[in-house]
Formats: sequence, structure tokens, C-alpha cells
Amino acid sequence: MGATRHLLDEDAIPTHWYNVVADLDSLPPPPLHPGTGQPVGPDDLSPIFPMALIGQEVSADRWVEIPAEVRAAYALWRPTPLHRAERLERAMGTRSKIFYKYEGGSPSGSHKPNTAVAQAYYNAQEGVRRIATETGAGQWGSALAFACTMFGIECKVYMVRASFDSKPYRKTMIATWGGECVASPSADTAAGRAILEKDPSTTGSLGIAISEAVEDAATREDTKYALGSVLNHVLLHQTVIGQEAKAQLAEAGATPDVVIGCAGGGSNFAGISFPFVADAAAGTGPKIIAAEPAACPTLTRGHYAYDFGDTAHMAPLLPMYTLGHGFVPDAIHAGGLRYHGMSPLVSHLVHEGVVEARAYHQNECFAEAVRFARAEGIIPAPEPSHALRALREEVEAADAEGVERTFLVHLCGHGNFDMSAYEAYLSGTLVDHELPQDELDRAAEDLEGLPALPA
Amino acid sequence: MGATRHLLDEDAIPTHWYNVVADLDSLPPPPLHPGTGQPVGPDDLSPIFPMALIGQEVSADRWVEIPAEVRAAYALWRPTPLHRAERLERAMGTRSKIFYKYEGGSPSGSHKPNTAVAQAYYNAQEGVRRIATETGAGQWGSALAFACTMFGIECKVYMVRASFDSKPYRKTMIATWGGECVASPSADTAAGRAILEKDPSTTGSLGIAISEAVEDAATREDTKYALGSVLNHVLLHQTVIGQEAKAQLAEAGATPDVVIGCAGGGSNFAGISFPFVADAAAGTGPKIIAAEPAACPTLTRGHYAYDFGDTAHMAPLLPMYTLGHGFVPDAIHAGGLRYHGMSPLVSHLVHEGVVEARAYHQNECFAEAVRFARAEGIIPAPEPSHALRALREEVEAADAEGVERTFLVHLCGHGNFDMSAYEAYLSGTLVDHELPQDELDRAAEDLEGLPALPA
Repeated sequence: MGATRHLLDEDAIPTHWYNVVADLDSLPPPPLHPGTGQPVGPDDLSPIFPMALIGQEVSADRWVEIPAEVRAAYALWRPTPLHRAERLERAMGTRSKIFYKYEGGSPSGSHKPNTAVAQAYYNAQEGVRRIATETGAGQWGSALAFACTMFGIECKVYMVRASFDSKPYRKTMIATWGGECVASPSADTAAGRAILEKDPSTTGSLGIAISEAVEDAATREDTKYALGSVLNHVLLHQTVIGQEAKAQLAEAGATPDVVIGCAGGGSNFAGISFPFVADAAAGTGPKIIAAEPAACPTLTRGHYAYDFGDTAHMAPLLPMYTLGHGFVPDAIHAGGLRYHGMSPLVSHLVHEGVVEARAYHQNECFAEAVRFARAEGIIPAPEPSHALRALREEVEAADAEGVERTFLVHLCGHGNFDMSAYEAYLSGTLVDHELPQDELDRAAEDLEGLPALPA
Repeated sequence: MGATRHLLDEDAIPTHWYNVVADLDSLPPPPLHPGTGQPVGPDDLSPIFPMALIGQEVSADRWVEIPAEVRAAYALWRPTPLHRAERLERAMGTRSKIFYKYEGGSPSGSHKPNTAVAQAYYNAQEGVRRIATETGAGQWGSALAFACTMFGIECKVYMVRASFDSKPYRKTMIATWGGECVASPSADTAAGRAILEKDPSTTGSLGIAISEAVEDAATREDTKYALGSVLNHVLLHQTVIGQEAKAQLAEAGATPDVVIGCAGGGSNFAGISFPFVADAAAGTGPKIIAAEPAACPTLTRGHYAYDFGDTAHMAPLLPMYTLGHGFVPDAIHAGGLRYHGMSPLVSHLVHEGVVEARAYHQNECFAEAVRFARAEGIIPAPEPSHALRALREEVEAADAEGVERTFLVHLCGHGNFDMSAYEAYLSGTLVDHELPQDELDRAAEDLEGLPALPA
């Protein structure tokens, strides 16, 4: 046997978030106002975000201090363990070393609370009494509901219909923490009503749910908006993951050759990888791989362009890889990876060649998830099963080359709420669809007429 | 804020299990053979248990070394955290200190893997290829499936029908780890078929499921049986919990005045409390409280007597508090607390007055669970919500007396798989039934004609 877990002392919870912007040679172009097409300023954002987060969104400081209250909340589940996956290595028959960082021990079961508690804290500090948000798989919505109860704030969650129906227990979890959760599109917003009128049976999308939550926040004096991924400040908060992993690997005497995470909006991926980016960009760090679903291949088949972050054109235009803001992917089980766009910072790093992207189908990802569960005991969420699929590819490549490599893979959440997905996989009823190019071409028509990225 | 988590280093995983038998002034009478009524010997047990576990079942040694392979498996989630519940203290407005030990971070989400990995290990060591077991709420069955995949053993789980229907995802979890799960009573055993014939719509019971699993093991050469609670060796394995908690409290400079756990078969309760029992018996240790459901009030309204551990009279007669082996409790959500009997060691300690017992209804327990979730972030399983209910009672008593006490409460698992129960509670549809005395009297008729306990 010989599982090896590397735990850090509670005092080793990072004291600062790491801002990758400080270490980039070039920066992504600025977000643009959805109405005017001009760069977004603090005044544009202040109706929906607290000032502290707006400051972090545009900060160029390398280190941002983590408030004591946020670190105290982190202590409920941080530092998270780094495991050496010795059983998986043996099952694979590889001589390479595999480490995984596990964020599933948080109260809501994923990495999402890392930014949720930070956002709830800053909102509470600025007197905000209610937060509206969207959620895909439900991980973010439940994380925010948890964070809001920690800081005494009300929480309203617009949950993508596809996940709302397939994961009903997320709604109960949110309610247990005192939050309210509705299926999106909902009748509670103008954006939701408009979409329901056009297509009453839509399975929804993150883009639609974002429109609803932003509208809610923009139209209520007592309410701000919170986003669970994509934006710079959200990615910033997640860097506690990679910082801890770096320290734990050092303690284990290991240096990663390859770092792998899944990418939906980009936040768990940024969390594990950004602390390694400066080294990677300099050619001295690990290869960094982002794994995404073939059903929503933003990085591998999307366009690098300005696009709306949401469906109803209420959110800023972001410079990012996108499939078009009207793209509605199949209702795959990895609901957290169904976003049409991608964080500007992750997009920029992919565009610069610092990060490599891969896309995989559901069945091959669940196959890896089940292998992982049987070897390592932890049942992964469908999202990080994409990272495990990329890991398999990389391990086999190392074996074929006859080299031993050290891998760091990010297990950003557990699959306790995804048992219906596992049931479907194990019973052989999951079908993989090839996404036709003409469907992608049609979706990309949404990009026509939008401002072009600077050359 | 100021959550305080006390983590021990991985090296602090206990090296030995603690055997409370070594520190008792008097011992419970021996188990009796179900057929002959004579004390059970190793030969009676060897068809269904490996020799190493039979040795532990009758051991009087104070310390039993934990094999390196078991400690390595423990390292996947142990040491588990001890938290100071400062937010809960503030929400309660008490000056008392509340600590909780949290076992929900294990792969299957409860304390059960502590003994599951030990049992799977010893079975594998002795060449056993398949293990059969029963499960109530599903916690034990999934823990054993997890442990079996760690040691390459097949696993068959008979799951009480009430829980099988209300928690369908446990079956998928077991299947993900490669195990097989059927509803009990099932058509796979003679015991199951006999009961189904009499009452096709029965919701089942742990007693029935035990009969099925024991029959499976006794009638197949390649199969042994594993029990998730009740027996001495199972309780022994759980003592890693209390040992860690003791060390963590010492690190925090705290000495508990009261230790509280819920009790179904007795194993999580023993895990947290047995390391404190010798002090408690000597009058220098904490008050120890076992919390159970009013719908299955084994300790508070049962008889201290010899009774069968199962329904079909295949398991030994155990000296314990029991409601009668035919007692089928309401299908309450705390499925893990629906056992008609109680571990002989816990029963003995209650009978001797070392441990105090209390019974609570569902709604008052869920009320505490929701309060706990909103204060501390973790959503408890329905079982430990009974411990939280007792905690509330004790904290209020301390406040009323004007004293500050230090409490240690055991949060033995998370409620991720119990969202339907929370949904029922939050929507106000849970009804508490008073258990009529004549129903208990009828059930106790099962005890007539069985051997009497020695005076």
C-alpha cells in the first residue's frame, strides 16, 4: 500500500493570494462596456461588485493580502491535502510519479469556497445584504450559499436548468445554508422570461443564468452580484490551491514536470496552475495542460475574440476564447464545464502558448474517474475527470518515451452529487456526440459585429 | 470569525487501537451460540470471520498494533480535523467551549472506513476473495466497498430497503467502487425470501439484512462476513477517532467535561468515547452521553438481555440493550440508528452507569443540524444530528447553571447523501411519532425463552 498524504500545518494556509498579472510579459486587452464598447471602468462595475473586488480585478500587485477573517473561514477545510497516488501509479503500471491536490474536503465539496468566502467577506465589509449569482453544476451556488451564511448575507442562486433537474439535491443544500435557488431561465427576471418565451424547454446555459443574476443585482439596491469563475479576482482567490501544492511538493522533494487541471470558466485551473506560470513562461517550469469537454470545446475549437460573458449582453465584452455567447452545449454531466467562454487570463495564456488545451468526451473521462475511484478511493466530480483523462494520456506518453515524469493533477471536487452521472456511465447509457463544425460556425456568427481584439 | 482547526501531522495517526476491555472492572457476559446457547468459541466464528479479527474480538490486550498497510490506507483521510465551533458558540450565545471531531472527510463520508479498511486488510491477508455485509443508511456498505477495492476483494452489500429507496445513490457509489448492492430483504437468500413471502412491502431492518449477509457468507466457501458495528473488534478499530481527539484537545489546551456521540450499533460512539472511558469510570473523566432516536430507543426504553443480533437467529445471542430482534422501527432518515440492539460493550457501560443515554425525535435533531450547518458550514448526516441535539441540551444546562463547560461532540459523517431528508425537514413534512409502549411490549415478547443474563 503506502498512500502518502502531505498535509501542511494550519499556519501554512497562504497569507496572500498570488496575482499572475504581475508576472506576465503581455496582458490581455481590457474588458469593454457592453453598451458603449469602451474599456470598463470602476464606475461601470460598482453597481454590481463591491469596491474591494473591483480593485482586485484591475490590480497589478503580485501579492494581495488575505484578510484574517477569510483565512479563519479557510481553516474550516484548508490547507487541503496533496496525495501521492501510489495505488493509481501501480494500477497504471507506470514509473512516473502522480500527485493530486484534493479540494473536495471543503463544506460544499469543491474549490469554489476559496473565492466564495472572500467575496462574501468583502461584500459584508461594504454593507451588502444580499448577493445574486448563477451556478452551473451547482458547485458555485452551494459554495456561495455556504459563504453567505458565514458572513450573514442573503443569497439567491440562478441554477442552469440542465443541472437543476439532474442534481436536485444542490437546491436543498443551498436551502440548508439558508439560500434560495431557482432554475434558470426563470420567471424572476426579464432576461429569463424573454428566453423562456422563445424556448420554453431550453436546458439553459451559464450565459443565460449570468444574465439573470446580473439583472437581479443591477435592479435591486440591496443586492450585488458574485461570479464563481472567469474574472481576475476570482482566479486570484483560487491561487491558494497552487501555492499550497507547491509547498507540499517541495516538502515531498518533488518538482512537477506536468500540471493538469480541467477548465470551464478557468478558476480551478488557474488555482492549481497560476503559481507555476511564471516558471513555465520562462521555460523552467512544468508543462501546463487545460482539459475541457469535447461538447463545449472553448479552448480547442473556439475563437479568440471579444465576446459577451452572458447571453443577454448585460455583462462586459471579454477578450477570450469563446464559442459565441449564444452557444448552448449538450447537457453533459460536467455542468461546471458548460460555459461558452473562458477567463481572459487563461485564454491569454493559451493564446501565448504557455498553456496547452485538450478536449475529451464524457465516456473516456468517466472511465478514468472510475479507475481513479477504485485505485485511490475518492470519487471525482465529472469536471476533474477531464483532468484525469489528460493525465492518462500524458502518463502513457511518458511510458512510451521510457521516461519518468512527475505529474500534478487537480482534483477540484468530489462526485457525491453526481451519482446519477455515474449510474448513467456504469449502465452504459452515456452517448458521446461529435459536435459538428457547422453548429460551431453558426454559434460563432454571434461574434460578428463585435469589437475586434487589438492586433 | 476565528474558526480553529486542530490538525495533527500524518505521523500522528495512532499506531495502536485502544481496547477498552483492558480497563473495565467488570466485563459483559459472553456471546452465546444461536443454536446451542453455549458461549461462542473461535470455531463457531471461523466460517464467517478471519482468525485475526476473531482474535481481536476476544482480546484483553489494552493496545492492538495497527498494521502498516492499514495506517497507509488511513492516511487517505486521517488524522481527521478537530474544530473549535466558535461560530456555533456565538450563535448559541454560550460561554462554554464546543469542539467537534469530524469524520466526514473520509472517501465514503463517515467514520465507517476506519474499521472497513482494517477488516478488508485482515480478510485479504487470510486469502478471502469476497465479503458480504449489510448496510443501514448505506454508510457502512459504501465504506466496505471502498475498503474492498483498496485490497482487491469482491464486495456484496445487502442494504435495508427503507434506505435503499430513500438513498439510491449509495448503490451507485458502491458500484463505482466495484461492489454489488441489493435491497434487503432480497430474493438472493433464504432468509430474505422467507421475510418477503410474509411481508412483501416490508421496509426491512438491519436485523434482516444481517441475516442475509451472514447466510451468504456461511454458505459460500470464498466469502466471509463483515459487520460495521456492534462487535468488539469493530469498536476497537474506531478508537483512532477518540485517541486523535484526545491529542488534539491537549494541543488546544482543553479538557472535555462532556463527550457526546450518537449511538446506533455503537461504533462511532465507541470511537469517540472509549478513549475517555477509563477516566470517566474513575470519576476523573468527562460525562459521556449517547444520543439515539426516539423511534428506535434501544438504550432508553429497551431491555438489557440476551438477544439475537439478527432477525433470522443466525447471529450469536449478544448481551445488550435490545428492543427485541423482530422490532422494525419507523423509516426515519437516520438509517444508521435503526438497529434493534446495541453493542455489548456500550450496553455494559450504560448498564454500569458510565455512559448516559438520551433519545430525541427527528425534527428537533434536524433543527440542530440546520443550525450547525448555518454556523459551521458542514452539513451533518442525520445520525450525528442526534448528538447535536444532546449538545444543545447540555450547553443550555451549563448556561442555566452559569458555568462554562468544554464539550466534545462527534460529527461522524456528512449529510451529502441525505438531501432528501433535509428537503423533507425544510418543507415541514417530517412527522414525529410517539412510539407506543404496547408496541415495545409486543416487540419484547421476542426475548421470552432466551437465556437470561447472569445476575
